[in-house]
Amino acid sequence: MPPIYLDYNTTTPLAPSVLEAMHPFWCEHFLLPSQEHQQGRAIGEGIERAREQVAELVGCDSFEIVFTDGGTEANNLAILGMGDAKAPGHILVSILEHESVLLAAESLMESGWKVDQIPCDPNGVISVDAVESRLQPDTELVCVQAANPILGTLQPIRDIAEVCHKHDVRLHCDATQMFGKMPVDVSSLGADTMSVSGHKFYGPKGTGALFVRRGLSLKPFRFGEPREMGLRPGAENIPGIIGLGAASLLASRCADQAADRLEELSQRFLSRLRETVDPELQIVCEDSARLPNTLTLLLPTDARRVQKMADRLIMAAARSASPPDQMTRSLRAIGLKPNEISRALRISLGWNTSQDQVDRSVELLAETWEISTL
Amino acid sequence: MPPIYLDYNTTTPLAPSVLEAMHPFWCEHFLLPSQEHQQGRAIGEGIERAREQVAELVGCDSFEIVFTDGGTEANNLAILGMGDAKAPGHILVSILEHESVLLAAESLMESGWKVDQIPCDPNGVISVDAVESRLQPDTELVCVQAANPILGTLQPIRDIAEVCHKHDVRLHCDATQMFGKMPVDVSSLGADTMSVSGHKFYGPKGTGALFVRRGLSLKPFRFGEPREMGLRPGAENIPGIIGLGAASLLASRCADQAADRLEELSQRFLSRLRETVDPELQIVCEDSARLPNTLTLLLPTDARRVQKMADRLIMAAARSASPPDQMTRSLRAIGLKPNEISRALRISLGWNTSQDQVDRSVELLAETWEISTL
Repeated sequence: MPPIYLDYNTTTPLAPSVLEAMHPFWCEHFLLPSQEHQQGRAIGEGIERAREQVAELVGCDSFEIVFTDGGTEANNLAILGMGDAKAPGHILVSILEHESVLLAAESLMESGWKVDQIPCDPNGVISVDAVESRLQPDTELVCVQAANPILGTLQPIRDIAEVCHKHDVRLHCDATQMFGKMPVDVSSLGADTMSVSGHKFYGPKGTGALFVRRGLSLKPFRFGEPREMGLRPGAENIPGIIGLGAASLLASRCADQAADRLEELSQRFLSRLRETVDPELQIVCEDSARLPNTLTLLLPTDARRVQKMADRLIMAAARSASPPDQMTRSLRAIGLKPNEISRALRISLGWNTSQDQVDRSVELLAETWEISTL
Repeated sequence: MPPIYLDYNTTTPLAPSVLEAMHPFWCEHFLLPSQEHQQGRAIGEGIERAREQVAELVGCDSFEIVFTDGGTEANNLAILGMGDAKAPGHILVSILEHESVLLAAESLMESGWKVDQIPCDPNGVISVDAVESRLQPDTELVCVQAANPILGTLQPIRDIAEVCHKHDVRLHCDATQMFGKMPVDVSSLGADTMSVSGHKFYGPKGTGALFVRRGLSLKPFRFGEPREMGLRPGAENIPGIIGLGAASLLASRCADQAADRLEELSQRFLSRLRETVDPELQIVCEDSARLPNTLTLLLPTDARRVQKMADRLIMAAARSASPPDQMTRSLRAIGLKPNEISRALRISLGWNTSQDQVDRSVELLAETWEISTL
């Protein structure tokens, strides 16, 4: 029996229908839209359909979507592209951000930008006050992710956007953890740029997109033949773009059901675990608004050891052997001590998770950590 | 009957065996190597096998290969990565370079770099003298492509590398047009960085690599979780990397035969054309060392018109409606006049080209331009 996959926040398998959608574009419809031929034009139309599908997922107009090769490039484009377009000023970055956000912002310090961090509270929330109190007269950009992959916490993006816009500051939101788990609507969230990563919601690896609010000025940070409204040069990854579109279609159609189902499975996971093992078993940021699929457990024993012992049966995420990894950083940000961080095991469920898998996982986990504490 | 594809220098279909090699990595082996699980480690080993396959194609060690998302990113990394690693100096860029090379170099002017162009002679060749005579005491980088996609001309990279190294200058070589057409060996060519693009030799779109000579200092120009020796962050496009490896294996195994076969087909194309239509029919840079698959014909009539009329039967490349495109730029660089450029039709053959296709193409072309001149 293959191990039960409980690490959907790291990456997801491609949905079979996405693979099917991509298929004709490898060997048969392999032209680029720039090729002046009827087939090339058809490919161009395929790209625009995919753009509409991503736009529907995000809740924007299709001309506000720029295709990238993933979330990292989307975050880089939003931040470096802003840095290149404006005179150096001040950037605020939440402490919970992905490395691609943190390091892209830091890289701008070489060209004179100042970068400050926004802390989060012990519940894993970036408060509006924490943002507003740190705004400076020359703040140009605030970066706050929509949801944290480790804590699962959802940030009050709409309120943060309001504060930012009141002060004429741009808000970039890395929303890569939201898609495929719950509905997203950038028009109500109010972010100015927003990142999408294909492989986080059953789309192809090597694909992503950046939402760029109409009228926003952004400069490309890589150079070549103009593509994607001048923001992203290079031959288009046609099958990847088609696949990202197909995955977006799936994710936007089933967003409500996915959220309900993942919530139900998470609740089942947690209550079974508490019934079986320890009614006091802690999960991180339990009382905060969270992703419906994410449970970071504080085990009674070392999580890496449990992870390794259960290797053939379950795949879940513990801290890396070489911190500061994202798990260590996120848990430290909410004030956890090293001995707590070492006991954290993240369970993240997905579309392919079944009730039976949940039940078996709970049993296997309970057994494993009982053995590991002997 | 589908149109005959004669535009392999723009893009190629994926080889069926490459599609097969990628297949298990979409839905089944979908983990990332960073996931601490036996499957994740297996994926990591798959990536390293692919790196060895690309290294064999290029003629280097596998630790000298950095995966990118295509030729454009590889060129950007070589140039921007050098610019970020050194104090501003002087860059020489051949007039025949791809936009991604020209514009990446130009972008460095904002941070104080000077950029000069190296002209080519009427035969489409960048001479060693043209390079050496333009070197300045603060020249840090010379960019010369291995082969031009329009003219087909091969540049004397080995001799240019020798001159560059004599003056302690780095040589970047965009070799994206060579692979799949003839053998390449960077150890004898002597370039310090060299670009590879998957979709130019029957590999997946959205894949590429940069050869970085051991010991060379280069800085990443995008930021995130460290991957690819710190030069290229972001979740790996696993199926793409596996596919690039598989395409590299194919291309390095059949490099000699491909060169011979493409040369034979090109000769057949040209001699049939001269027999059928016009014994004086000109092709561009005929007397220069050229790619074995590329013939840029100077038709007796407007090439865009012929291209459009033959649209359902043949796909070949004419200048774009919106110059300066690469064809217009390359033909202008060898001194062609606008009325000659408008008559240029590029034929580029590939692995799937048959003798029968060549014969039919010649007939169709001859018919079309006869009609078009009526």
